[in-house]
Amino acid sequence: MLVLASGSVGRRALLANAGVPHDVMPAPIDEDAAKASLRARGLGPGNVAKALAELKALDVSARRPEDLVLGCDQTLALSDGTLIDKAPDRAVLESQLRLLSGKTHTLFSAMVVAHQGVPVWRHVEGVNLTMRVLSDAFIADYLEAEGDVLLGCVGGYRIEGRGVQLFSDIAGSHFAIVGLPLLPLLAFLRTQGVVAT
Amino acid sequence: MLVLASGSVGRRALLANAGVPHDVMPAPIDEDAAKASLRARGLGPGNVAKALAELKALDVSARRPEDLVLGCDQTLALSDGTLIDKAPDRAVLESQLRLLSGKTHTLFSAMVVAHQGVPVWRHVEGVNLTMRVLSDAFIADYLEAEGDVLLGCVGGYRIEGRGVQLFSDIAGSHFAIVGLPLLPLLAFLRTQGVVAT
Repeated sequence: MLVLASGSVGRRALLANAGVPHDVMPAPIDEDAAKASLRARGLGPGNVAKALAELKALDVSARRPEDLVLGCDQTLALSDGTLIDKAPDRAVLESQLRLLSGKTHTLFSAMVVAHQGVPVWRHVEGVNLTMRVLSDAFIADYLEAEGDVLLGCVGGYRIEGRGVQLFSDIAGSHFAIVGLPLLPLLAFLRTQGVVAT
Repeated sequence: MLVLASGSVGRRALLANAGVPHDVMPAPIDEDAAKASLRARGLGPGNVAKALAELKALDVSARRPEDLVLGCDQTLALSDGTLIDKAPDRAVLESQLRLLSGKTHTLFSAMVVAHQGVPVWRHVEGVNLTMRVLSDAFIADYLEAEGDVLLGCVGGYRIEGRGVQLFSDIAGSHFAIVGLPLLPLLAFLRTQGVVAT
């Protein structure tokens, strides 16, 4: 059985819609603390995402050793290296959108699968997204329409929702933006007999 | 007001999820007959899709002249030029999947907006999708799980559903695969005041 070590609604929907049987058991990790410590070690955004995904996979694997446990994480970086975390409240979210407006950023999406407490598969990929210049009125309406669900989203957007209105260009996988690069994941799950070939 | 001249559930969901206000009025076009006539004129798959999208947009525009009417179409071609249409029944669908299995095809997605009976905007883009080699058992299970909804899908897959399991590689826009390239459409709709800037 595949166990998704994430509470993300978007990831669960992707797995369910793709017809992949799975359980859900979010890992109770203090992401902010873990992230700060990883950055202090000098890790770049892709490697931070990979380390956090691994931490989540291993945490749940300790409780579900016989299962394949999938940990996931996303990080976001501007081209000048500025990292953007999940916003704690709407005011921070608004200032993040103002920062991202009119610029290209890279969203890194990492997945690690653990089995019996050991990482057995890893994948990281980046997507380059270019935000158009957003008006103040647009940002206000957008935050009102999307609501607090955005606080769980790195960068403050759900590409599968109204978030697509933020962008002028997207180069990379849609599934990676949602947070679960399905093609490489499915290829791995086929080798494990979790999905049929 | 934007009027979607398509009954596609996937397209309606994309527009609704993106927060684009719209009506739906499918164009009662005999697609097979129109397609045959366009091909007889020697049009390639991208231009066939564009001509059909325009036909649908103009048909509905005659009844909704004051609105912006969006017609859409998709065509699918193998690299050797073979064209694949929507399957009329499950047996044809199965033979199409066997034909596409292990090969790369191009899915063309066209949109035309009409206003007062005149086309005012056009967009066509292609996506290259590579299908892995599908086992007979997989195809049988897949057709059973997805059901007759696939008969409305060029190529016999919904990428937003179990169809993602068919592919090893996808190069291009997710929204174009679903049948509504949202980024260029939203950019146009912003110039028309249909969505906010």
